[in-house]
Amino acid sequence: MKIHGTRTQGSPRRLALFLEEKGLAIPFVPVDLRAGEHRTPAFLAKNPLGLVPVLELDDGTCLAETTTIARYLEDLFPEPPFLGRDPLERARLDMWARHVEFGFYTAVRAWFRHGSPLARALEPEQIPAWAALARRQAEDALRVLDAQLAREAFVAGPRFSWADITLVTSLEGTAAAGFAIPDDCANVQRWFASTSERPSVVATRPL
Amino acid sequence: MKIHGTRTQGSPRRLALFLEEKGLAIPFVPVDLRAGEHRTPAFLAKNPLGLVPVLELDDGTCLAETTTIARYLEDLFPEPPFLGRDPLERARLDMWARHVEFGFYTAVRAWFRHGSPLARALEPEQIPAWAALARRQAEDALRVLDAQLAREAFVAGPRFSWADITLVTSLEGTAAAGFAIPDDCANVQRWFASTSERPSVVATRPL
Repeated sequence: MKIHGTRTQGSPRRLALFLEEKGLAIPFVPVDLRAGEHRTPAFLAKNPLGLVPVLELDDGTCLAETTTIARYLEDLFPEPPFLGRDPLERARLDMWARHVEFGFYTAVRAWFRHGSPLARALEPEQIPAWAALARRQAEDALRVLDAQLAREAFVAGPRFSWADITLVTSLEGTAAAGFAIPDDCANVQRWFASTSERPSVVATRPL
Repeated sequence: MKIHGTRTQGSPRRLALFLEEKGLAIPFVPVDLRAGEHRTPAFLAKNPLGLVPVLELDDGTCLAETTTIARYLEDLFPEPPFLGRDPLERARLDMWARHVEFGFYTAVRAWFRHGSPLARALEPEQIPAWAALARRQAEDALRVLDAQLAREAFVAGPRFSWADITLVTSLEGTAAAGFAIPDDCANVQRWFASTSERPSVVATRPL
């Protein structure tokens, strides 16, 4: 197996961090997004949506979508679990992972793509009004997570899970572009300070 | 168990259709979105994101996120399967379901909320430029699905699955607001014509 995507960037980093937590080693094949490598026919044959990461199996079968790949790897290598052990726990963890993904990540990604000078090559038609609204949506999503983190040590409950992986990589990935955790989200700030020190987070951080 | 959400509307309809295909009966408790019922403290206690549907278990445990709920129900009632039987099939079906959800549904929903007069109550701050871009993104996502439907009978392969459920309800739900399958997507049009006649689709269609 191999993973197409740059290990320390964007969604491929979510898989890299997951593999560190699992104690698994799968090689990453870097994909140069700035050079448009994800838009080449060779890459689109692996994922017609042109998104990284892609997991390529030894027989050439390709799987896209970060969470899909994580779940597949957890099916093959269940321990330690980051996506749940039984139907109800799987559902709870999946629900929170989707809250992070649809509530926060989608919004902060829209803010970055439509509001940051760094993203002009990715999004030639930036819409500043949409960036401003998306930023407020991202902050509101963090407020929901803040209420949860007032009760629980991690996003989906007492254990570190896929939801935490998605949140920490999204926050670190957009901090450089100027996104900050709102001042009224003290629980998210506390969670972020301690999660940033996890060995898996440190080991997959860009230099 | 009961499902909070109106059986023929939006994402709750995806679950209603799934239950029809499964031959399962779970009662729906309508939620009046126009009256803001999803923003009341009673509803936010069930789902802090204020989104329908929510599955409430007999002990009061609440699960949100449509796909999370479908997967939980499939874990409890595996036959017939709409989310896959083994790790690789589950991954393939999940990947295509996410392509539909993130590629098409998210975009067409943004087009509706930011571009339709019908959505002004939901989205007081509509951004027409974002609606126009989101419409093109939704059409591009359908072109990816069109290429897949040139090879396969259904979105994720030879069998009707969760990806088809999400696509057919999104297309029917936005057709009334004026979204049309592009002319160059003949395979999606053919798939839509036949899928629209499935008994589960007919049985869950708004009157």
